[in-house]
Amino acid sequence: MFQKITEKDINYWRTVVGEQYVLLDNEDLLAVSKDETENLVYVPEAVVQPHNADEISLLLKYCNEHKIPVTTRGAGTGLSGGALAVAGGLVLDTKRLNKIVGIDTDNFQVTVEPGVITQELQDAVKEKGLFYPPDPASKGSCFIGGNVAENSGGPKAVKYGVVKDYVLNLEVVLADGTIMWTGANVLKNATGYNLTQLIVGSEGTLAVITKIVLRLIPAPQFDMLVLVPFKSATAACEAVNKIMLSGVIPSGLEFMERDAIEWTMRHMDSSVISLTDDVQAHLLIEVDGNERDVLYKEVEQINNVLETFDIGEVLFADSHQQKQALWSVRRKVGEAVKSYSIYKEEDTVVPRAKLPELLQTVKMLGEKHGFQSVCYGHAGDGNLHVNIIKGDMSDDDWNTKLSEGIAELFKAVVGMGGTLSGEHGIGWVQKQYMHIAFSKAHIALMKQIKTSFDPNGILNPLKVLPE
Amino acid sequence: MFQKITEKDINYWRTVVGEQYVLLDNEDLLAVSKDETENLVYVPEAVVQPHNADEISLLLKYCNEHKIPVTTRGAGTGLSGGALAVAGGLVLDTKRLNKIVGIDTDNFQVTVEPGVITQELQDAVKEKGLFYPPDPASKGSCFIGGNVAENSGGPKAVKYGVVKDYVLNLEVVLADGTIMWTGANVLKNATGYNLTQLIVGSEGTLAVITKIVLRLIPAPQFDMLVLVPFKSATAACEAVNKIMLSGVIPSGLEFMERDAIEWTMRHMDSSVISLTDDVQAHLLIEVDGNERDVLYKEVEQINNVLETFDIGEVLFADSHQQKQALWSVRRKVGEAVKSYSIYKEEDTVVPRAKLPELLQTVKMLGEKHGFQSVCYGHAGDGNLHVNIIKGDMSDDDWNTKLSEGIAELFKAVVGMGGTLSGEHGIGWVQKQYMHIAFSKAHIALMKQIKTSFDPNGILNPLKVLPE
Repeated sequence: MFQKITEKDINYWRTVVGEQYVLLDNEDLLAVSKDETENLVYVPEAVVQPHNADEISLLLKYCNEHKIPVTTRGAGTGLSGGALAVAGGLVLDTKRLNKIVGIDTDNFQVTVEPGVITQELQDAVKEKGLFYPPDPASKGSCFIGGNVAENSGGPKAVKYGVVKDYVLNLEVVLADGTIMWTGANVLKNATGYNLTQLIVGSEGTLAVITKIVLRLIPAPQFDMLVLVPFKSATAACEAVNKIMLSGVIPSGLEFMERDAIEWTMRHMDSSVISLTDDVQAHLLIEVDGNERDVLYKEVEQINNVLETFDIGEVLFADSHQQKQALWSVRRKVGEAVKSYSIYKEEDTVVPRAKLPELLQTVKMLGEKHGFQSVCYGHAGDGNLHVNIIKGDMSDDDWNTKLSEGIAELFKAVVGMGGTLSGEHGIGWVQKQYMHIAFSKAHIALMKQIKTSFDPNGILNPLKVLPE
Repeated sequence: MFQKITEKDINYWRTVVGEQYVLLDNEDLLAVSKDETENLVYVPEAVVQPHNADEISLLLKYCNEHKIPVTTRGAGTGLSGGALAVAGGLVLDTKRLNKIVGIDTDNFQVTVEPGVITQELQDAVKEKGLFYPPDPASKGSCFIGGNVAENSGGPKAVKYGVVKDYVLNLEVVLADGTIMWTGANVLKNATGYNLTQLIVGSEGTLAVITKIVLRLIPAPQFDMLVLVPFKSATAACEAVNKIMLSGVIPSGLEFMERDAIEWTMRHMDSSVISLTDDVQAHLLIEVDGNERDVLYKEVEQINNVLETFDIGEVLFADSHQQKQALWSVRRKVGEAVKSYSIYKEEDTVVPRAKLPELLQTVKMLGEKHGFQSVCYGHAGDGNLHVNIIKGDMSDDDWNTKLSEGIAELFKAVVGMGGTLSGEHGIGWVQKQYMHIAFSKAHIALMKQIKTSFDPNGILNPLKVLPE
């Protein structure tokens, strides 16, 4: 149904974005052919780099009329293949939409273009005493536009929520070239259907995001960080809920299996954590706020909970450097596992108290289906990243049989009241499992919504929704 | 296009819900013919009172096939006419879906049916040490289902957010009778389109909500409340933003014009607030948390801000009774204004710092168009309720010309980055103004979404979306 790109198409795009912003060289095409999802490669036919909504409007209108697939791309740090041009066609690279349009310190809001790196956005608002909490592990390189498209989370979500909790309004371009704001720059809104929240997490399949209005909060002034070694990984998962039940809401509550830490420190050539032989997992726990005394009390309260478990010596990070070093280990786990082996990453999420059961299920399924796994993630949210390692699995088992094991895992997750993805999205690699979480009627309804936005199906085709 | 109800329809419904739950008496029809919106009355042809999703599924399937309009109704406390059966047909009364299905203290969640009174829900979870913050002024009588349908707010929203920030998952029945859960019982979710958030605030036009999973938070242990008289209403609005900029996030930050308080105390026969002649407006400010010392510090910090304004004597509520009395005045303003005069209520919302400008615009337009207004509301969110009083306006001016003034107000609001409704919804009485906030393309897209859910348009017809 889609059309191949022609010379005529390319000439038109050149008139829209400028000669040098239509890329056709093999090298340029390869540069946008991957994201961080496994080792998948899909080479598009062309790349355009527009620099504003008006240009995107013209591009989409044209592609819509000519039935050319358009895959919008941020920084390419996605973990579900959302930015892969699996249907060929055009990659719409958002890197030139890279302005922080304005920080509204009166209203605690920022208006930003999608191609701004999340960390840079955080730093810019922090200079004004404001805080944008959601920070995926890739915050130093990912784009805020991708974060919105995937409804990203990150370690702060346990206290501060995910991206969707901060998006107030979006400027988007629809498939037919219509430019619109989805909502208003207000904290509460009961005016028509919430298209803003519908587009957050829709992974580039409904519209192209060209501006984002985020609410901000006053930056907390202090934080404290502790690392807690556990002799049982299941016990560490159990402690997570006990901490929450004690009444403290940490600003970070991360779980890492022993292998995750060991491999990451080796990968980083770091020795910040001393791993004794009896340690099976760690919790990394942060509290933040404006009152040091309160934070000390909270750490003590957490400690009282921890003492009821069989733990090793708690490491209390006593400097900014040490905090950075510990967070850095946590942030690099994905990268480290990737460097160690071919792997598939699942992004399971369950009601928090089910975390021990989830971990045990992962290991049980690993034994049954013959896969090794490294688990870590945002335990405070019940969000466990399960990295399945190819190791010495045969190519045949890896390519064909493993999906049975993953399907079984997802069935268990759904049975626990959870779902397929907490923050990585469905994209390309998880859509085959969507029927586990959703009925046919539900998927049909999502498809009708897709069609309402994008009748010709040009926007990020073949993603999210199964055939 | 819609069909009138026949004897055959009624007989079928009786087999579904039981004889006594199909109501046809004039008195029963009148009882559901109103909500709290102005003095509007729309009498339906019949009322059904199903008691679970299965019954609702059968009812909707039937009405969908027979093209009978279905208006879902909660407690009838709405302020935009959302529950009025303006197209006749059937009213689906949700009062028998009145169970708190379960409070999950492990995961801080509650599953509740739509016909539970919000206050009762709050009380039930509070007994378990948990807190469900959104509490509209009508919390003692409104249903949680209506709150979700309208995306309600309330005074706590300034710190804790609105209903949409607490809804994790919904069981809904679609127009064709399909029963589905929209999401999962998890804190983060990046799995397909966010139908949960699309249905929150959709005012019964997309689906009938039959179960609601809400996240909860640990209940804060202490709160403090102060009432601050201002000699200028505009100055009171200015103080709102200054308080927020000082770094404190109050758990309530309410604005009331002098008339609002005067009329309400007269209506309630209360004297809790002593109004000196020079007072033009009040701020009611609450802080909450688990550390009394911190609350005292916050009140002091707020006081430092207030001292830069020309204020009267600050009333520090020193008992639970006094706090209740003050909140009671605030909660009763709407009712009091209603008892005083025929009125129309607007629910304007702007970025918070624009509040003084909004208030001045309201008064300026009142002078221009000859209407008197009483303003109050959730100033911390930029959400100002504008009650327009009929007073001695002629019926002709009231019925025909006033809408020009309201349209002008909404245009100004949209120009400030705001929108038509912060928490009351669009329903029946505001839809004529939707074109002020949305382009034709935007409204067309919303209509397509409506059609995806409800192709025959039987669910709450003629609401939200303009023709």
